[in-house]
Amino acid sequence: MVQATTLPRNEAGIETALGILKQRFGDRFQAGQAIRDQHGHTTTWIANQAPDAVVFPETTDEVAEIVRICAAHKVPVIAFGTGTSLEGHVNAPAGGVSVDLTRMDKVLAIHAEDLQVVVQPGVTREALNTHLRDVGLFFPIDPGANASLGGMTATRASGTNAVRYGTMKDNVIALEAVMADGTVIRTASRAKKSSAGYDLTRLLVGSEGTLGLITEITLRLQGIPEAISAARCSFPSVDAACRAAMMAIQFGLPVARMELLDAMSVKAINAYSKLDLPEEPLLLLEFHGSDAGVAEQVETFRAIAEEVGGSGYEGAATAEERNRLWKARHDAYWAVQTLRPGTKAFATDVCVPISRLAECVGAAQAKMDELGLLGPIVGHVGDGNFHSALLVDMTDDGERARADEFVGWLNDLAIAMEGTCTGEHGIGQGKMPYLEKELGPATAYMAAVKRALDPDNILNPGKIVAL
Amino acid sequence: MVQATTLPRNEAGIETALGILKQRFGDRFQAGQAIRDQHGHTTTWIANQAPDAVVFPETTDEVAEIVRICAAHKVPVIAFGTGTSLEGHVNAPAGGVSVDLTRMDKVLAIHAEDLQVVVQPGVTREALNTHLRDVGLFFPIDPGANASLGGMTATRASGTNAVRYGTMKDNVIALEAVMADGTVIRTASRAKKSSAGYDLTRLLVGSEGTLGLITEITLRLQGIPEAISAARCSFPSVDAACRAAMMAIQFGLPVARMELLDAMSVKAINAYSKLDLPEEPLLLLEFHGSDAGVAEQVETFRAIAEEVGGSGYEGAATAEERNRLWKARHDAYWAVQTLRPGTKAFATDVCVPISRLAECVGAAQAKMDELGLLGPIVGHVGDGNFHSALLVDMTDDGERARADEFVGWLNDLAIAMEGTCTGEHGIGQGKMPYLEKELGPATAYMAAVKRALDPDNILNPGKIVAL
Repeated sequence: MVQATTLPRNEAGIETALGILKQRFGDRFQAGQAIRDQHGHTTTWIANQAPDAVVFPETTDEVAEIVRICAAHKVPVIAFGTGTSLEGHVNAPAGGVSVDLTRMDKVLAIHAEDLQVVVQPGVTREALNTHLRDVGLFFPIDPGANASLGGMTATRASGTNAVRYGTMKDNVIALEAVMADGTVIRTASRAKKSSAGYDLTRLLVGSEGTLGLITEITLRLQGIPEAISAARCSFPSVDAACRAAMMAIQFGLPVARMELLDAMSVKAINAYSKLDLPEEPLLLLEFHGSDAGVAEQVETFRAIAEEVGGSGYEGAATAEERNRLWKARHDAYWAVQTLRPGTKAFATDVCVPISRLAECVGAAQAKMDELGLLGPIVGHVGDGNFHSALLVDMTDDGERARADEFVGWLNDLAIAMEGTCTGEHGIGQGKMPYLEKELGPATAYMAAVKRALDPDNILNPGKIVAL
Repeated sequence: MVQATTLPRNEAGIETALGILKQRFGDRFQAGQAIRDQHGHTTTWIANQAPDAVVFPETTDEVAEIVRICAAHKVPVIAFGTGTSLEGHVNAPAGGVSVDLTRMDKVLAIHAEDLQVVVQPGVTREALNTHLRDVGLFFPIDPGANASLGGMTATRASGTNAVRYGTMKDNVIALEAVMADGTVIRTASRAKKSSAGYDLTRLLVGSEGTLGLITEITLRLQGIPEAISAARCSFPSVDAACRAAMMAIQFGLPVARMELLDAMSVKAINAYSKLDLPEEPLLLLEFHGSDAGVAEQVETFRAIAEEVGGSGYEGAATAEERNRLWKARHDAYWAVQTLRPGTKAFATDVCVPISRLAECVGAAQAKMDELGLLGPIVGHVGDGNFHSALLVDMTDDGERARADEFVGWLNDLAIAMEGTCTGEHGIGQGKMPYLEKELGPATAYMAAVKRALDPDNILNPGKIVAL
C-alpha cells in the first residue's frame, strides 16, 4: 500500500458534528470500523484513510442538512457512490463524514421526446439502462465498473463507448448540487445547448466532490441503434493494432467501441472468462447504425485492418455472444490479476493524441521489460487512452519502487507527447503531483476556484489540488 | 438604443495606463473617437459604450503585457474579435482598454492525424476553413457571421451545424489564456479526453472575456464528408416544421443542419438574395456521410416530413446551389431588416427542450401578433433554439416598450419550459437579469468564481454577473 498524505484533523468539530448527525439520522448514521473502512476503500493501491462516520441521506434536503452541519463545524464531507474510483478519491485524509448516496437511487423522470433522463446520483449505469430498455433508449457511457452516475459525473468518467458518444462532460445536460455552504443550486436548464453564463455543469463534472455534492443529474440519452455489430480482429503487433485504430479515427469511421487488448491481456481473459480468443494483440469493436450503415462501417474497418496486417476478423453472431465478449473485456481488470496471484494491480491511465499512441504504448512495453515489470495493456485506443495493469508484489520493496518509477515515467512521457496523466480515472490523491507537471500555472487557478467555492476546504479535502 | 448601466470609472488609473500603453505600442495604440466607437459597437440594440483606447497586440506576450499594465492600474481590459456579438459584450461601461485581437490571426499548427488545429484568436472561421481545404478537414461550427474563433470560444457560439457537431464547448480541446494578473496558462493537453482536474477549458469557453483573454485555441476538426446533400422542404405551418424537426432528432437522424425559416423570413431572403423559395414555413437541411448513408438519411427525412404534411422536398443539385442556399440563410439577419426599412432588429435567442419547441414558437408568434410586433422567426430547430428578429421603429417609444415586453415575456416562457434565455448569443449586458431568473442561486457561485479569478474586476466588467 502507498501511504497518502494525512491532513490535520479538527477533532473537536468532528466530535460535535458526529453527535448531531447521529441524533438526526439514527440508523442511517454508522460509525462501525468495517463500514468506515469500506467507505475509505477504493479499487486502488493507495492505503485506506477511513472517514469517522458514514451517513446515508435519502433526499437532496438531507444532503444539504448534512453539509450545513459539517460546514458549521468545519468537518470534511466526502461523497461516496460505489467506491470504484482508482486514485484514492474517497479517502478521508483529515477524517470527517462520508456521505453514501446509494439510497438516492431513483430515476426521477424520463423525457423520452427530448432524449433525456433525470436521475439521483446513486443510480448505477446498469440500473439506468435496465430501466430505459422499454423506451428504446440507452445511456452510452460505460467505464466498465457498474459505477453510480453521481460518481461517474464527479470523475468525468468515460470508457469503451467514449470514442463515439463522448465522456460524461458531453452527456451531462444539467446538475443539481449542494454547495459547501449547504445551498442547493441547479447549474443549467434542460435545453440542449445554452450560453447562459459560466459553465458550472462542466465545472462540477470531474470535480471529484471537491466543489459540491451532486444530488441530481440530467443526462443525454441515445436511441438504441437499429443495428449493433460487435467483432474482433487480431494484429501482428500492438503497434499495428494502434495504427489500425488511428486510421479508423482519421477516416472518420463512427466506431462505437474500439478496444485494444495486448496478447497478455487476451491470455488472461481467455482463462478468466473461458474464451478461446487468439492470444495475439486484439481489437474488440462495436459498430452502431442502420443495417446498411453498419455493414458499410464493417467493410471500411476490414479494409483498414488488412492494410496493417490484421487478420481473423470475426463478428459476434448473436447478442449473447456480443455481451459475452464485452463482459470479458470489462472483467479484464480482475482477469489480469490472476496472471500473477498474490499481486496487486496498479492501473495506469494516460491519454495521448492518437498520432502518438502507437509510440507511447510501444515505449511503455519496452520500459516495463527494462524494469522487469509485468503489466498487461488494455486501451480505449480510439481516444488515445490506454491502461497498463502493473501486477506488483507489494511485499517486494524493490519491485514497488520500480512500479512507482514506471508510473511516474509513463505520466511524464504522456505529458511530453502533449497528452495527459489521466484520460478518465481522475486526479484523486494519486495523480496530484502529475497534474502539477501537466498544467503547471493553471493549477493555481484551479486552487483559486476551490477556495472561492469551498473557503473552509470541507468538501473532499486533499484531492485534485493542494491548498 | 437601450442604455446599458454605467460603472464607476477609475480616471487616474485609466490615464496612467493609457500613457504607458501609448508609449509601448506606438501606432498599435489608437484612441481616435471613430475607432473607439467601432470597438464599443456590436450588432445590438444596446447603446455604444466606447473604450478609452484600443491596442492591437500581435503575440501572447504582448497581451500579457497589456493585462499586467492594466492590472497594475486597475483598468478594464476588454477583448475584441470581430464585434459581431449581440448583447453588448464588448461595451466598456467603466471605460478602459479594448484589446483588438485581429492581428493574432495565424494558424499555428495543423495536426491532421489528430484531427486538430491550433489557432490564434483572431483567425476567423472562414479563414480557417479556407486554410484547411487542402488537408480535407473542416471546422464545423458556423454561427453565421464570419466571427473570430476567439470570440466564438468566448461566447460559446454554435449555429447551424451544432445539431450534429455540437457547440464550441464540444469542439475546443484546449486553450491558452492570459489571466487577470497577466499569467499565461494552458488549460489542457492535446489529448482527446482527460480527467485532469477542473475543466478550465469549459470554464473559459462562454466566459465572454470576464475570466481571461484567450490567446490560443486548440480545436477539434472533422473530415470533409464523402457526400454532402443540402435540401429544402416546405411545411403547412411552423408547428408542422417544428414537429418534423423533433421527429428527426428523436429518430436519431444525424442531420448536419436543420434550419427553420417562417414564411416571413423566406419572403425576406427571396427578396434580399434573389431566390424563389415557396413563401411558406421552410426547413433547410444538410446531410453529411457516405453516399449510401446520405441517401438513407434523405429517405428517412422525407418519410418524416410527409407524415406531418411536408411538401416540395428539393435537394440542391450542385455545391454552388448549396452554398447559395446557406449564404441566403446566413444573410437572413440582414434580409429581414429590409422588410421594414428604418427599423432596428432585436434578435431574441431562446432554447427549449425540443419537445416544447413547437409550442414555444407558436406562443411567440401569437404574442407578437397580440403586441402588434413584426418579428420573422429563424431557428436552429434541431437544438430547440430559435430567434425572432423583432423589427422595431426605435423612434416609437410605445413600440420599443412592447418589444421590451416581448423579449422579457419570451425569456420567461423559455425558462418556464425548462429552457434557457440564451441558446448561443450569451449574456453580455442584455441578458443579465434573465440569467438571474434562469439559474437563481447558481449565479452567486458564478460571481464567486469571477471574484476568485479576477479580484479587481478588470476583465470585461459589467458582463454576465453583477459583482
